[in-house]
Formats: sequence, structure tokens, C-alpha cells
Amino acid sequence: MGLGVRAAPFTYVAHALAVVAAAMVLYWCIHFRGGLAFEAANKNLIFNVHPVLMLIGFIILGSEGNAENSSTFLPRGFSFVCKILSILAAIMVYKVLPTVNHDTTKLIHLILHAIALVLGAVGIYCAFKNHNETGIANLYSLHSWLGIGTISLYGIQWIFGFLAFFFPKAAPNVRKSALPWHALLGIFVYILALATAELGFLEKLTFLQSSGIDKYGPESFLVNFTALVVVLFGASVVVAVVAPARLEEPQGYAPIPEN
Amino acid sequence: MGLGVRAAPFTYVAHALAVVAAAMVLYWCIHFRGGLAFEAANKNLIFNVHPVLMLIGFIILGSEGNAENSSTFLPRGFSFVCKILSILAAIMVYKVLPTVNHDTTKLIHLILHAIALVLGAVGIYCAFKNHNETGIANLYSLHSWLGIGTISLYGIQWIFGFLAFFFPKAAPNVRKSALPWHALLGIFVYILALATAELGFLEKLTFLQSSGIDKYGPESFLVNFTALVVVLFGASVVVAVVAPARLEEPQGYAPIPEN
Ligand code: HEM
Ligand code: HEM
Ligand code: HEM
Ligand code: HEM
Repeated sequence: MGLGVRAAPFTYVAHALAVVAAAMVLYWCIHFRGGLAFEAANKNLIFNVHPVLMLIGFIILGSEGNAENSSTFLPRGFSFVCKILSILAAIMVYKVLPTVNHDTTKLIHLILHAIALVLGAVGIYCAFKNHNETGIANLYSLHSWLGIGTISLYGIQWIFGFLAFFFPKAAPNVRKSALPWHALLGIFVYILALATAELGFLEKLTFLQSSGIDKYGPESFLVNFTALVVVLFGASVVVAVVAPARLEEPQGYAPIPEN
Repeated sequence: MGLGVRAAPFTYVAHALAVVAAAMVLYWCIHFRGGLAFEAANKNLIFNVHPVLMLIGFIILGSEGNAENSSTFLPRGFSFVCKILSILAAIMVYKVLPTVNHDTTKLIHLILHAIALVLGAVGIYCAFKNHNETGIANLYSLHSWLGIGTISLYGIQWIFGFLAFFFPKAAPNVRKSALPWHALLGIFVYILALATAELGFLEKLTFLQSSGIDKYGPESFLVNFTALVVVLFGASVVVAVVAPARLEEPQGYAPIPEN
């Protein structure tokens, strides 16, 4: 879409919102929910790994760009946090590193998506572990169904991307016509991941509210605001991916003189 | 995006899924939940108007195209249902009626979005009415927050669209640069509406499951499958809107000879 804006400002907004969302989900799970653990007598601590890894590992690392560009605009300490969070990049990498060698960017893109996939799988494993060790049924909710759908599509997207664009690599004309579909399906899976996370926040908070926490109390507000920040973050990532990296160069298309 | 496919097939898929989703939500609210009412001693019947109007009135009418084109491909009875459902059109209208006079399409687009807005407002009113008459708190959930956000943005989008493209109409160059933003924000609000509906299905089903209905019973499956059909429906609408109406004509852009 000829939005007439560059991707860069949206990547800065995305970085800032990613840091805020990551801090909020950690504060929630550690301060309000008692912390994280892989093995524990208190099975809730095992569950707590789930939202943290799904949000920071799967969604944020799956979308964050390398902060090199944007960090020049941000205060020093903040840019450090940004870098730690986004030393690894994924969907946005073609927008955050437009000037870097294309093969390098491709490699970063594919490695980061692989890391996001693994962290996502570990996060889901923790949700199952918690359910199994406390005798709760598996896979009954819309959240869990969409979650399994999302991570499966993400895995398929990764395998297709690898085969088509990296090794053994499809013929140039096949790569060319596959690319817009790769981008469209990539954005679709990403939005599905965002929706799944929103469902997760709502579901967990609904459980907590029905077992007594105040509907208008601080924890409820924290969780709902985290979910809102995630929506804004996701929107800025999608705009950054849809907008061109540079305005000057036509993207393989030039305006027709008379319209 | 140069997807290399026409919008038309996606509008057919969208129509088919819209009919299925509409039938499912009606069957759920009437058969399992006891029916719909604006005034009733059983306040649940007032609530039931909410999912029906939000899905059929707000989301489906807000996105359905006029079925004229697609109905030629569909069996007779089915095409009649399609027509009833989509005598009114909205987001997809520019893709379903590409050959019709542009001013007519514009008028249909704006009227249909107005109807969706009104039906959405009535649907939300029923959720509040149910809460107020049963003493349940208002606006505590992520679903309700995103719901208010969605309908507000939808109203703002409508007013801006009306002022910029219909009356008094902005200058041609302003219209031209505003259009991609109008489309992007329109798609954003639409996806937000879809996500809100998913949250609504999950929330309602979670309430029902915690008051005793079987997690793997027929009603749970019906609601979860309705929500899945809505996801597929939404995806097909977005692809139909993003894909070009015709492949032959370049959309104001032509390929550069050497790339
Ligand atoms: C894209 C990100 C996410 C994916 C793919 C995902 C996936 C899953 C899956 C597959 C399960 C099923 C586990 C089982 O059946 O044993 C699950 C459970 C759960 N998840 Fe997530 N999740 C995501 C994010 C979140 C977030 C951010 C939260 C917020 C707290 C959350 C809360 C829950 C809850 C409460 C459950 C248990 C109830 C249920 O099975 O629905 N999830 N998740
Ligand atoms: C689940 C994993 C993946 C997702 C969600 C994903 C998503 C995306 C998205 C959204 C874009 C568009 C970015 C833009 O235009 O700025 C893109 C571009 C691209 N992806 Fe992936 N991708 C994945 C895996 C892979 C893999 C494994 C490869 C193999 C190398 C790959 C190769 C590419 C290439 C070559 C581009 C084109 C960049 C360009 O020249 O503009 N992707 N991907
Ligand atoms: C885009 C579509 C939708 C919008 C904009 C929307 C909006 C809203 C709003 C604003 C409320 C708050 C009412 C109050 O606080 O008194 C609400 C409540 C509710 N809605 Fe929706 N809704 C939508 C679709 C749905 C659907 C499809 C369902 C499925 C059953 C649903 C289920 C609920 C439930 C259970 C409540 C009461 C609990 C709560 O306040 O969160 N909604 N909705
Ligand atoms: C909430 C209300 C609205 C939403 C969600 C919305 C959404 C959209 C979307 C997604 C598109 C892109 C469609 C495509 O490219 O096929 C579009 C196009 C357009 N809309 Fe709206 N719109 C709304 C209200 C309005 C209003 C009130 C007007 C006033 C006339 C308007 C005028 C237009 C025009 C002129 C186009 C361009 C069609 C073209 O030439 O391709 N819209 N709208």
C-alpha cells in the first residue's frame, strides 16, 4: 500500500512498546503470581512460564528488529534494554536493517524465527505440564485450539521459507511469485499469535476474577493494560512490515504517467 | 502486495463462511441459550441479542459484499440466503462490484458501514442492558475495553471517510494521500472487531463451563467452531480487500522494465 511513510518510525514505536509489554508481563508473573519455575510444588509457578515465554519469546522475538537503528533515537539505558531484548530479530529485520547485506539479513530472519519457534514450543510445554500435574483437561479452550493452530502454521511457514529461500532454494521466478504469499501468510500467522495471546490474557484473568480477585483491582488493570499494549505493539509491527523501508526507491514499480 | 490472484474467489469463500457463521451463532443462541428478546424476565435472552447482532450485524454486514457476482457460482437456495445476508455491503464492496459506477459503490459502502455501526451499537446496548438488569459490573473485561475501542474507532473512521470522500470532500490530492490510510485503518478496525468477537466467544464459554457445561460437550464444540469459522471468514475478507479486483489493469502502477 502506498502509505507514503517510511517503516522506521514504526519500528521505534514497536521497540518502545515491546519493552513496556515485556516489563509488564514479567512484573505480573513475578510480583502478583509468585514467580517462574520449571519444577515446583506450587504448580502455578510452572504455568507462569507460559505467558512470559509466549509473549517475550514467541511474539516479541518473533517480530522485533535489531535495535541498532532505532536505539540512536532513544535514551542510553533504554537503548540497552532494547538491545538485550532485540539482539535477535525476525519479521521486522528487513525493515530495521535495510542497508545490510541481503544474505545476512536473511540468515538473521531465519535464525530468529527458529528461536521464536523453540521458545514458543517450550512455553506451550509449560502450559501442558501445569495442566498434567494438576489434573486439568488439555485442549478444551478456543485459546488452546488457536494456539496449537498458530504454532503449527508458524512451523510450516518456517519450513517452506527455508526450502524456498535458503536451501535448496526454488528457481528465481518461483521465489518471486512465492514471496508475497510468504509475507501475507507470515503477517497472518503473526496476527493469529497476537489474537491467541489476547485470548490467553482474558482467559487467565477470568479464572482469577472468578476465584476472587477484584474486577477493578490493580492486578486486573495490569493484565488488561498489558493486553492493550500488546495490541498497539502488534499494530506497529504490522505497519512497519507493510510500509516501505525507503521512500525514494520505487519498490519494483513506478507510477504510470496518466492515471 | 502483488499476490498475483484476483479478489473474486476470496469473496465467494467469504460469503460461504459468513452464512455458516451466521447460522451457527443463531443456532447457538436460539437452540442452546433459549432465544433472543429485548424485554424479558429471563435476562439471559437479552444478552443473547449481543453475540447475534455483533457477529451478523456488525462484523458480517460490515464486511460482506453484495452477492450479485458471487451468487452466479452458487446453488440457487444458497444464493438467496447470501442475498438476504448481504443485500447490504461494506468493506468488500469495491471488490465485489468493481464494474459498477464508482459513486454508487461509494454510496453503498458508506450506507452499509452506517448500518453496521447502528446494529453494533444496539448489540452493545443489549450487553449493558443485561448487565444493568442483573447487577453485573460494566466494563471490567478486556473484551469490553477492546469492544468500546473498536466501535469508537469505527465511528471515527466513518466520520472521517464521510468528510474526506463524500461531503464536503477533501481536495483530490488530499483524498489521494488519505486513501491508503483509510484502507489501512479500516482493515485494522476490522481485525480488532474480529479479535473482540473471539474474546467474547471465549469469555461467554468460560462462564458457561465454570457454571457446569461440559468442556468437551456439544455446546462447547459449537461455540469454539463458530469462533474458528469467524477467523477463517475474517482472513478471507482481508485477503479479498488486499487483492486487486482485476489482474489485467495495473492499479495505477506499472512494472519497471529492468528490476
Ligand atoms: C501466541 C501465544 C500463545 C500460544 C500459542 C498459546 C498456546 C497455548 C496452548 C496450546 C495451551 C493449551 C495447554 C493445554 O491444553 O494443556 C495454552 C493454555 C493456556 N494459556 Fe496460552 N498461549 C499463548 C499465550 C498466552 C498468554 C499471553 C497467556 C496469558 C496469561 C496465556 C494463558 C493461557 C491459559 C490460562 C491456559 C490454560 C487454559 C487453556 O487451556 O486454555 N496464553 N496456551
Ligand atoms: C515462521 C517463520 C517466518 C515468518 C513468520 C516469516 C515472515 C516474513 C514476513 C512477514 C516477511 C515480509 C517482511 C518485509 O517485507 O519486510 C518475510 C520476508 C522474507 N522471508 Fe520470511 N518468515 C519466516 C521464515 C522464513 C525463512 C525460514 C526464510 C528462509 C530464508 C525466510 C525468507 C524470507 C525472505 C527471503 C523474505 C523477503 C525479504 C525481502 O527481500 O523483502 N522467511 N518473512
Ligand atoms: C466486535 C464485536 C463485539 C463488540 C464490539 C462487543 C462489545 C462488548 C462490550 C462493549 C461489552 C461490555 C458490556 C458491559 O460492560 O456492560 C460486551 C460484553 C460482553 N460480550 Fe461482547 N462484543 C462483541 C462481540 C461479542 C461476541 C461475538 C460474544 C460471544 C458470546 C460476546 C460476549 C460478551 C460477553 C460474555 C459480555 C459480558 C462480559 C463482559 O463485560 O466482558 N461479545 N461486549
Ligand atoms: C467505519 C467505516 C469504514 C470502514 C471500516 C472503511 C473501510 C474501507 C476499506 C478497508 C477500504 C479499502 C477497500 C478496497 O481497497 O477494496 C475502503 C475504501 C474506500 N472507502 Fe471506506 N470505510 C469506511 C467508511 C467510509 C465512508 C463513510 C466513506 C465515504 C464515502 C468511505 C469511502 C471510501 C472510498 C472512496 C474508498 C476507496 C475505494 C477505491 O476507490 O478503491 N469509506 N474503506
